[in-house]
Amino acid sequence: MSAEFDLINTFFKRPTTNTDLGIGDDAALLRVKSGHQLAVSADMLISGTHFFPDASPQSIGWKSLAVNVSDMAAMGAIPRWITLSIALPDVKEPWLEAFAKGFFACANTFNIDLIGGDTTRGPLSISVNIMGEVPTGHALTRHGAQADEDIWVTGKLGSAALGLAHLQDRITVDVASLDEALAALHKPKPRLNVGISLVGIASSCIDISDGLLADLGHILKASKLGANIKYETIPVMKAIHNNLQNDLIKHCILAGGDDYELCFTASKKHRDDIATLSKEHATPMALIGKTTAQTGIAVIHQGNPLSLETYGYDHFT
Amino acid sequence: MSAEFDLINTFFKRPTTNTDLGIGDDAALLRVKSGHQLAVSADMLISGTHFFPDASPQSIGWKSLAVNVSDMAAMGAIPRWITLSIALPDVKEPWLEAFAKGFFACANTFNIDLIGGDTTRGPLSISVNIMGEVPTGHALTRHGAQADEDIWVTGKLGSAALGLAHLQDRITVDVASLDEALAALHKPKPRLNVGISLVGIASSCIDISDGLLADLGHILKASKLGANIKYETIPVMKAIHNNLQNDLIKHCILAGGDDYELCFTASKKHRDDIATLSKEHATPMALIGKTTAQTGIAVIHQGNPLSLETYGYDHFT
Repeated sequence: MSAEFDLINTFFKRPTTNTDLGIGDDAALLRVKSGHQLAVSADMLISGTHFFPDASPQSIGWKSLAVNVSDMAAMGAIPRWITLSIALPDVKEPWLEAFAKGFFACANTFNIDLIGGDTTRGPLSISVNIMGEVPTGHALTRHGAQADEDIWVTGKLGSAALGLAHLQDRITVDVASLDEALAALHKPKPRLNVGISLVGIASSCIDISDGLLADLGHILKASKLGANIKYETIPVMKAIHNNLQNDLIKHCILAGGDDYELCFTASKKHRDDIATLSKEHATPMALIGKTTAQTGIAVIHQGNPLSLETYGYDHFT
Repeated sequence: MSAEFDLINTFFKRPTTNTDLGIGDDAALLRVKSGHQLAVSADMLISGTHFFPDASPQSIGWKSLAVNVSDMAAMGAIPRWITLSIALPDVKEPWLEAFAKGFFACANTFNIDLIGGDTTRGPLSISVNIMGEVPTGHALTRHGAQADEDIWVTGKLGSAALGLAHLQDRITVDVASLDEALAALHKPKPRLNVGISLVGIASSCIDISDGLLADLGHILKASKLGANIKYETIPVMKAIHNNLQNDLIKHCILAGGDDYELCFTASKKHRDDIATLSKEHATPMALIGKTTAQTGIAVIHQGNPLSLETYGYDHFT
């Protein structure tokens, strides 16, 4: 047995509950529930791009899975299985142990089986593939929004971006707010139960990983619509609320990635349903605007449209 | 739309044939055929570890998918869907175009849909997750071998390792043989039809990615068996056959990874079936030894056991 295999067995082989054959063969084997589609998504996290090279391995472990769970939430799918591929510059057992601790904390929270993967030598990078089940024909896609529907977001936006800006010395967050901002950055909580409950209510849904404008933009493009957003109605934490005029704060709210909240559209007739869901899942949901037949996004702040050119987000620009 | 998205749309979005919803949402949606299990495998290829940084992007594209198809072959599964995550130091369109050409050449050869993935900035690495279908309960696993069964391999072993040794100036391969060795290294042909046809015949199966001894070792460990191998019966290309005594050549044959041939066990009663399969698929299959109740591998060369300590393979040693 090679040491590559030992790494998997030592740190990543755990009992599975949803799987016929787990780690240890050329492929894992599983069965998708009858009447369900398999929802599949992949994300890659790179040291230096998605997290600081010296970031806590436990939080990297949590986050690398959580961002994928968030994709399932955005589809209304129940996550079941994951594969994990890691490139490591060298084998540091304490690092791997802490990474696995964070990773499995997330896997256990959402009852997901790790069924396979790869470990290899290379610059630190983490690639997760997630698979989940959704009743056939009922997934929450990006293309189902209609004109004149409500636009909703869960939780608060901009917190993770604020935490990152603080770590980069671009702003100083007061001590009272720092924990909340850093928790949003390091330990995002995917809105899985909310996403699953939105099946039948939301007409479209996405998780906010690249920022509100970019991600809402994906829904609008896929649905061939535009949107009017009221800036003041976007839910934010106190440290952000106190500085709504600040350019960096505006950027956090409109273009801050990494919050992993959900943005969804729904007919006005579902407002009561959404209020009920919000209570059931103890998750704030805010109505921030409406879709329009005319394309383009307008964000209105104190009666005037904000200039939005600077709020796109792009890994390659 | 972000440039990240444009990269996917420009280079990697193609029509799908097996998929309900492909690239462009938070997750893809697909249906697994009734009466089938989903077989899932993941592999990661890193520049400098799995290929030379200046390797042809077209061959990297082919190979990064082919090694995953090979895992499906080893399970007897029909590959259907893949996700692809790529980290790139920067966007070089000609590189991406050539990579995509090789990748889709392989995808088209085996009728596989690319259904999702991720592109991000980082040191070059490629992570593929493959999903396929196998009739429930009939996958070729590693743990089904019995004592006193035949051990078979497809094709020829050591060719890819010989090509690599040549590129690394550790040996000089004569011109007449070089094309064959480099083709094995750069454009491995997964034995998919053979793997699928071995369902019901092979008692266990693996693809040879880490070398014969390491991979046969996985079967033996999972099946709690040992093996006797006749060195001279291992099928090899001419440049290798002429140098069987050479230490580097021995290493190519016994520990050379990257051939992506299949190694499988079968009861002696299936010898005629295997001869028929070999003809049907125009694929040489060689009987190289037998399993033993006693654990451990013995490789007999000219009546004497070879010393095997140096023929393990390990990404981290």
